[in-house]
Amino acid sequence: MDQKISLVENVIKSRLESDVNLIHEMVNHHLNSGGKRIRALLTLGCSNLCKYLNGSRDINLAACVELIHSATLLHDDVIDMSSIRRGKKTANKIWGNQSSILVGDYLLSRCFEIMVEDDDHEILKLLSSTSSEIAQGEVLQLQHKGEVDMLEEIYLKIINSKTAALFAAATKVGAIIANKSKKEKDALESYGKNLGMAFQIADDALDYLSTKNIFGKEIGKDFYEGKTTLPLIIIFQRGNTEERNFLIEIFKKKGKKRR
Amino acid sequence: MDQKISLVENVIKSRLESDVNLIHEMVNHHLNSGGKRIRALLTLGCSNLCKYLNGSRDINLAACVELIHSATLLHDDVIDMSSIRRGKKTANKIWGNQSSILVGDYLLSRCFEIMVEDDDHEILKLLSSTSSEIAQGEVLQLQHKGEVDMLEEIYLKIINSKTAALFAAATKVGAIIANKSKKEKDALESYGKNLGMAFQIADDALDYLSTKNIFGKEIGKDFYEGKTTLPLIIIFQRGNTEERNFLIEIFKKKGKKRR
Repeated sequence: MDQKISLVENVIKSRLESDVNLIHEMVNHHLNSGGKRIRALLTLGCSNLCKYLNGSRDINLAACVELIHSATLLHDDVIDMSSIRRGKKTANKIWGNQSSILVGDYLLSRCFEIMVEDDDHEILKLLSSTSSEIAQGEVLQLQHKGEVDMLEEIYLKIINSKTAALFAAATKVGAIIANKSKKEKDALESYGKNLGMAFQIADDALDYLSTKNIFGKEIGKDFYEGKTTLPLIIIFQRGNTEERNFLIEIFKKKGKKRR
Repeated sequence: MDQKISLVENVIKSRLESDVNLIHEMVNHHLNSGGKRIRALLTLGCSNLCKYLNGSRDINLAACVELIHSATLLHDDVIDMSSIRRGKKTANKIWGNQSSILVGDYLLSRCFEIMVEDDDHEILKLLSSTSSEIAQGEVLQLQHKGEVDMLEEIYLKIINSKTAALFAAATKVGAIIANKSKKEKDALESYGKNLGMAFQIADDALDYLSTKNIFGKEIGKDFYEGKTTLPLIIIFQRGNTEERNFLIEIFKKKGKKRR
């Protein structure tokens, strides 16, 4: 799998090549930032599980899935004004928000080019609708920013769209390229979706529980930014009136809507 | 043509439908902002010229071309910190930069969904590569921000990518869906490209020559932002040393690189 992942990175590197210097620099920074490549691994793993053997579609599509994620990260870091990710300075911190917005657009467009070359209608449909699902989840999250009493239902809807949809697509792709039955495709899609939900819930909990060194990101950022996630929702559900009012007051001060 | 354009607007409106309120509001604002829909008109006009008669692919693809443009505009206005466009408040001015970034992503993703449904490999290839060409042009422009002595060659490269490429795609699409020969496709592509270059040069000149009421945007913004366009390049080429130094000094103060 290690060998396959480095092939995915080669695809990303070669397909993002541009004679625009700034793109070149930012792409290199991104590739060297040491992401876990979980989504790409899911596509590779599920392709392998489904016995996809001949060809390099698993590599190319793992690269696509990873690129959709990378494009989202670049924009997310601008939106959240993040300065650190994976223990390193974020692109927006180094090159500014403007560059991150445009290079994010570039990544997404390049990703569509790779998908179009792969030329499978089912996958094109899946990944393009996943991409718009992610954007909707991100907007929904923004719309509810600063809402300390956000419903758990809304939280689940947000993480389903912004995270689980791409995990589900990443796993389903493996079954599609191996020409598996609908039942098998659905099974892998469901596995990816549940894994994605669990992943995001854990990630949101780590924002309260971890340390900067281990997490690679600033701790407590969600709370200070007025981004309501499951830990806060549960605290709010279980709190008494006094505790709730205390949280509401803090959110009023710290989490002013900055749409 | 008026009837066709309103069909294009219907497609855009129905395809951007989302149960996320903020998206709904921003899309409506965008649709009511009274753009000229030049790119959509080019696709419709060229489809008509090539005698594409049966079907609604001209409508759907005109919507795609317009959506690529709209997504770019939303991000451009964040990058340029614009507060007025087409005589109205920009989305980023009303809903903030974060919303504009995310809804721009949403528009682009939805546009890919429509293209995928249209299901024509040649058009998918054309429009996805156009989209990455635009992003590269935008990054190149950013990279050269604050450069008062920018080469005319770089300027032409920038506007070719950020503007002319989409005009060329818009016109070529008409020939593709009407199954015209390569020669005819190339001819319409070339027409679109030249029209796009002329359009951007005129637009850049209007930033120096027009009035806010007629132009619908703030005047002199390029200069004050350190964005070098053809009028400034020519002034610089023709200026004597004293005049050039004067411009360099102003750019140092006003046009600080804000990448």
